[in-house]
Amino acid sequence: MPAAHEFGANRLDQLSVVLISTRNPLNIGAAARAMSNFGVHSLRLVKPYGPSFREARSAVGAAELLMQAAEYQTVAEAVADCHLVIGTTSVGHRDLQSPLHSLEQGAEIMRVQMLSGRVALLFGSEKVGLSNDDLSHCHALLRIPTRPEHGSMNLGQAVAICLYELARDVWPVQPAIPNEAAAGAELELLTALLIETLQISEYVNLRPATLMEEKVRRLIRRLNLTASDAETWMGMLRQILWKLKAGDGKNK
Amino acid sequence: MPAAHEFGANRLDQLSVVLISTRNPLNIGAAARAMSNFGVHSLRLVKPYGPSFREARSAVGAAELLMQAAEYQTVAEAVADCHLVIGTTSVGHRDLQSPLHSLEQGAEIMRVQMLSGRVALLFGSEKVGLSNDDLSHCHALLRIPTRPEHGSMNLGQAVAICLYELARDVWPVQPAIPNEAAAGAELELLTALLIETLQISEYVNLRPATLMEEKVRRLIRRLNLTASDAETWMGMLRQILWKLKAGDGKNK
Repeated sequence: MPAAHEFGANRLDQLSVVLISTRNPLNIGAAARAMSNFGVHSLRLVKPYGPSFREARSAVGAAELLMQAAEYQTVAEAVADCHLVIGTTSVGHRDLQSPLHSLEQGAEIMRVQMLSGRVALLFGSEKVGLSNDDLSHCHALLRIPTRPEHGSMNLGQAVAICLYELARDVWPVQPAIPNEAAAGAELELLTALLIETLQISEYVNLRPATLMEEKVRRLIRRLNLTASDAETWMGMLRQILWKLKAGDGKNK
Repeated sequence: MPAAHEFGANRLDQLSVVLISTRNPLNIGAAARAMSNFGVHSLRLVKPYGPSFREARSAVGAAELLMQAAEYQTVAEAVADCHLVIGTTSVGHRDLQSPLHSLEQGAEIMRVQMLSGRVALLFGSEKVGLSNDDLSHCHALLRIPTRPEHGSMNLGQAVAICLYELARDVWPVQPAIPNEAAAGAELELLTALLIETLQISEYVNLRPATLMEEKVRRLIRRLNLTASDAETWMGMLRQILWKLKAGDGKNK
């Protein structure tokens, strides 16, 4: 049985990234790299400036994806097989004629549609974004939540953020705590060693001895030590104790 | 009283983005642009390659932020006033000696710390990421969830995604439905107009007339029309009806 995230990866096969009138080939390459990072493979280009984009050095690890990108002369052709077309916009001042969603909400709508049919996510040119004609092909728009005073994002970064949000449940990161936490017996041994060290170095004599044990015990617990770090601290303390006792002998 | 998101924006003042041994000035500029997009202002650079980065053209709208970036010779100096230091990593193969979190979990931990003290988010160089020495300054690591086969991201895109996740609740996008939905009376009028058109054009004669009214009513409701679109459709139908009736007169 495939793992849950494999179904998610299959779902991403239903997504096409459509870049319209992109001017800088490096941005096309950067978009391709982010697509490869997040497992989205269908790149469609409507009237890209110049043919050089297929060699964009910015497509690190995504050269094949870039070679297979499809070129179109019109938005209508690029989205002909898509059942949901979502446009990206950074501006709030435009007189919106389509529903506008946050990226999070828009991604949710897209995920549902991707269960049954192809979805297109449109990005306009670096300078002017999507034109009114481009927007007329969209069922809805989405916006990446940014500071209102500086909403204009780099194209490659905008593509990367949208794909991160769309794929966030597909590629799980297993959280890892590198080592097991120290057990009670180890912490108690470390506590005893530290108290002995403090007694020999005469730190303890400066405070009430009964309170000291409790205080040191709490101090050690707040360190949240791993088993191996507790071992290291005990080794250090044993050596310090040995040296203290040796010096003590010499002094007498 | 400040709005909820203003508190969030203040919280972002507690975040420093630390770029270590960055090679490509364009990546520093791209990081600065994304920082400006998401409202993070403190950029710290540890041993950047060459002095030219301050003029990076990629820092669109973030020239001032880039000019104010602080330079350091060591990681220790760059994080001296930081109470939590988080490193970013794209690899799973390294023998991790620090806790590893997904970006989502790591961002949550950082948000909590930012309520009371400065937090540093570290990014290593483009080629090798953070060194073991860099990692030894980190309390924990985070990873952007990517396709396991291609985890290496562009630096500017990685910075943008991390800041998007950290600021996702700070800059709310108000969803907007551009026009009010059509009211029942308008839909009923449209239904009547369409049925009349279908009767005159003799489409209705081909089917049982009693079922037709219900069917057309449902068909119209499924369009989820706005009030203004319902108005447009009614105008079109009235014109078509007028033409049909004129033609009808002529034929007789």
